[in-house]
Order: sequence, then structure tokens, then C-alpha cells
Amino acid sequence: MAASVQVLGISNAIVDVLSHVDEGFLGRLGAAKSSMVLIDEARAREIYSMIGPATEMSGGSVANSIAGVANLGGSTAYIGCVADDQLGGIFNHDMKSLGVDIRLPPRSGGAPTACCYVLITPDGERTMQTYLGACTELGVADITERTVGTPKVILLEGYLWDIPQGPAALRKAMEIAQRSGTIVAISLSDAECVSRHKAEFLDALAQHAGMIFANEHEIMRLLDAKTFDDATKAAARHDLIFVLTRSEKGSVIVKGNETVVQAAVPIRKLVDATGAGDSYTAGFLYAWTSGRPLRECAELGSRCAASVIQQVGARLEKDFRV
Amino acid sequence: MAASVQVLGISNAIVDVLSHVDEGFLGRLGAAKSSMVLIDEARAREIYSMIGPATEMSGGSVANSIAGVANLGGSTAYIGCVADDQLGGIFNHDMKSLGVDIRLPPRSGGAPTACCYVLITPDGERTMQTYLGACTELGVADITERTVGTPKVILLEGYLWDIPQGPAALRKAMEIAQRSGTIVAISLSDAECVSRHKAEFLDALAQHAGMIFANEHEIMRLLDAKTFDDATKAAARHDLIFVLTRSEKGSVIVKGNETVVQAAVPIRKLVDATGAGDSYTAGFLYAWTSGRPLRECAELGSRCAASVIQQVGARLEKDFRV
Repeated sequence: MAASVQVLGISNAIVDVLSHVDEGFLGRLGAAKSSMVLIDEARAREIYSMIGPATEMSGGSVANSIAGVANLGGSTAYIGCVADDQLGGIFNHDMKSLGVDIRLPPRSGGAPTACCYVLITPDGERTMQTYLGACTELGVADITERTVGTPKVILLEGYLWDIPQGPAALRKAMEIAQRSGTIVAISLSDAECVSRHKAEFLDALAQHAGMIFANEHEIMRLLDAKTFDDATKAAARHDLIFVLTRSEKGSVIVKGNETVVQAAVPIRKLVDATGAGDSYTAGFLYAWTSGRPLRECAELGSRCAASVIQQVGARLEKDFRV
Repeated sequence: MAASVQVLGISNAIVDVLSHVDEGFLGRLGAAKSSMVLIDEARAREIYSMIGPATEMSGGSVANSIAGVANLGGSTAYIGCVADDQLGGIFNHDMKSLGVDIRLPPRSGGAPTACCYVLITPDGERTMQTYLGACTELGVADITERTVGTPKVILLEGYLWDIPQGPAALRKAMEIAQRSGTIVAISLSDAECVSRHKAEFLDALAQHAGMIFANEHEIMRLLDAKTFDDATKAAARHDLIFVLTRSEKGSVIVKGNETVVQAAVPIRKLVDATGAGDSYTAGFLYAWTSGRPLRECAELGSRCAASVIQQVGARLEKDFRV
């Protein structure tokens, strides 16, 4: 049985490949700005041959959040698939160096470690094309009482429902969690992902989840709400904690009849909006698993989000302290 | 015979691994601040296990300069050894995406692609530990009339004299250059490198070189001068162009009795001093191989240096235009 940690993340383990492109590039690619689409290996090679010089850094939404919790001083563990290649080594290094307990060994002989081409347009927006590679090999057999352990929270991402054994592996993880009293938190990933897997998300929400992280678009899509206000009303009818982020409008936490409204923390200068949601999740979960009340969780989330958008990259810099 | 380009670079092909460390870290490592030392694979693994999350980007001094010339619109080619691994793919991608003609195929079955751990202390200084890996496999056989072609300038770096067949390969490159009227330019790399290979540098300078790129420390070390003024006087006695950079004091070009003094271009904010010298070299050589007078070469060099130190990373961002 693995040691008990505050937060265990299960997600796609991805190395980001960041490069600057012009608006016309997105048109030639047929990519909608700010979208995330999945691509195959051939397409990945094609896109890589089209982009300019790039910078590589570990990424992946829930992986970013786990790195963030670890950076805040929380105890963390991670389940995700990388290949035994150099990018896999980079991903695991970056997690381990923060003290994250990596629960799966790198895979041999299969697809390479996943990468996400992050295409940055002059307006600072990021459009993502993700080749899932080794991530798709995450299987039901990887999810056991040993690899999951007994964390306070398991954090799952919506994107996991995109991989072949994802739904079955996640069901198993949620069942293991339920038996040990672990809270299941789900980050909805993006609105398109919600559309792809709405039925499964609603099922998880009804049966296993204790906490949902979503932005306005995602929660409205999930709960069929026309306005954010309608979404919060619908959320209040569930026996769950909804953590809803609204960019510069701050965040709203809904737990039945209890509502916490948190303003966004003022920033000096927006440098790079990437990772705002992931870092908010990190701050919120670190505080929550440290036994803090919802208001303090929301506040720490906001402060983490404000910090990460004033630096380049999706992960809080090392030794970040709020 | 390869196409004739403005600048061919021959150098160590390196991927930088950047991470933030505190002052105490350098002490524990036994590393002098701002130094560059060579390490073996075991030490590379050890250091990597000690550092926090990192960012990866293509680097290498002369490789940065070649990328810079290409970014300015110059025609360029490159000779350097990477392995056929992911980091080698990253290095070659970043060069090719700027239009640099890569002249050697990746190596199979040998050491991995070189990496340089760039340790950034809170004062912004960078201390480097370099594992040369596949770079050490550059051999005399790689330098042929076909791979060298007939560029206007061959740019070599002092660090090449550190690898086993480096001196012999460089001698061959310089002989090929001489036969085709190609100018040999040498970037002295760093003062310690000058100390390691002073006799060879002086020999190259006397027999083959037409242009030397150096900072104050390097040129004083090479010419046994106590002051920068003494160094410029000694330089004037050679039949060579000396391009001497002095950080915020600007640069001085010495060509026999002709001296050009160029002020540093004012900047708004120093973001990251890395790559200042490499980018200066890029600007200077782009202008020089475009037939511009020395004063304009120095001015473009200064403007490139000023640009690169106001961004993160050692290479000018894509679509940089001065």
C-alpha cells in the first residue's frame, strides 16, 4: 500500500512544445483559436515540421495541478503513462524534483511520450494540438489499491475519458477511492471534452465524485445551463462541491446551499494566461486537504492563479510560496 | 558541393536545460558562479537528479549565432553532432525551422545528444555544466568539401578544441576554407577555454583565421594583455578583424589601424543576459556577409544583443527583425 498523500493525480502525462505562430498559421492548420484537439503521430510530425523554434516544458492539466500542490508543500502522487524516452525522463524528472511520488514505471516498446504543441499567437492566446502517445496505454491494470493508495483526494481530468481504457480505469479508481473514503475530484478539462463525454461525466458526478473543478463554459455545458447563474443553481441541487472559475471575475464555490464568492487577486501584468485554472486547482486542493475552510481554499486558489499568469509557463515556478 | 551560404557554423550541438537554483546549490555542487565546466554522463545524471523542474531549449554558443543569422534572413548551414534521440530531434528541428541547412545526419548507437544544465541563481547569473555526449563524436571524416561547401564565412567556436578530434577536424575545415577563399571566424567561447587551448588558438589566428569574436576577458587572456586597451593595441598588430564585446560598455572592432567604437544599444529592462555575445555575433556576421561596412556590422550586432537580453533564452525570438 502506497503512503497516504494529500492529493493523487491521474491524468495524461504530457510535455508541452511551445512556439510562436502568426494568425495565418492557425488558418492553414484549420485550428480554431484557443481550442485543444487530439492529433495522431503523423499529424504531430507534420505540425512539428511547420512550426518554428520551440521550448519544451512538462505540462498536462492535472499534472500541472499536482506539481502545484507539491510546490506549495503538499504531499502528492501521480499516475500517468510516459514512455522510457527522453521526453518521458523530462516529465518524470520535473515531477520527482518537486517531491511527487511517481506511481507507474515508464513504458517500453510502445508509443513515445505525449506532447502538446502549444501555438502562441501574437494576442497571447494558446491553441493546442495534442498527440497522446504513451498516455493512451494507461490501462485498468495500472489502477490498483497499491498504485492508488489512500490519498485524501484523487484528482482526475476529463481528458482521461478520451483514451481507450480511460473510462474503465477511472471507474476502478473511483471505486477504490470510495472504499477508502478518498474524495474524488474531477477537473472537466475543456468544454469540448465535456461535450464528448457528458453522459460519463454526469454518471461519475452522480455516483462517485465529491468535487468538480470547472470554468464557466464547462459547467454550463455539463449542466445544460444557459447562464452561469443557472449553472450555479443547478449545481446547488447536487451533493457535491463545485469549484467554478471565471477568469478575471474570480471564482464561485457551490456546496449545496453554501456559496462562496471569491474575487480574482489583482495582478500587475498578465504575462501568460496558461495554467491559471490548473494553479487555482492546486491552491484550492492544497488548502482543502490541509483542513482549511472553503473561503480560504478559494483565496489560495486565486492567489496561485494570479501568480502563474504573471510568469511564463503553466506551472508555478519552484519555491513559489504564497 | 553544398550550396554557398553566408555563414556555416561548426560547433557543439547542445540542448539547454534551464532551472532555477539558490546560491547554496552552487556551493554544494562546487561550481564557480558563471563558469562553464564539462561533466561526464554520470555527473550529468547526478546534477539532473538535484535540480528542480526545468525548461528545455536548443542552445550552444555558435549554434545560437547561426540561428540568429538565419532569423535575420541570412543563408546558413551547420555542422555539429547530435544523436538520433528526441533531444537531437529538438535541436535539428529548431535549426531547420529557421532555414538552417543541417549538414550531418544524427548519429546512431553512441552517446546521447549533448545537454547543458543552465543553473540560474536569483541574481540572474547563469552557471553552466555541460555534458558533451554526441558532440564528442565529431570527427575529421565529417569535415569534407561537400559538408563545408563554400560559405562566405565559417564560424568556429573555441569549445570545439575540447573534443577529441576537434583540433584535427578544425584544421581540416580551415584548410578547406582557405582553398575556397572562405573567411574563418573564431568565437573564443570563454576565458577558461582560451587558457585550455591558447597555443592552438594563437596558431589558428596566425595561419587561418580572418576574424575573432571575443569579450574583454577572452581577448586579454589570449593576447596576454593586462588591460583591454593593451589588448586592442596587440590586436592591431595582427592582419585580422577583432570583434570585441564589452557588455554595457558596447563593443570595439579592431582591423589593423582601423578602429570602430560602438556604444551598447540602450535597453528598457534586462530580462536575461544569456546569448548577448552570440546574438551580437549573429548581427555582425549577417551584416558583414551582406557587404556592410564595419560600423554597420557593429551597430546591428549591438541591436541584436540588446534585443536578446530583453527576452528569456539565448536565441532571438522567431521573426525578430531589427
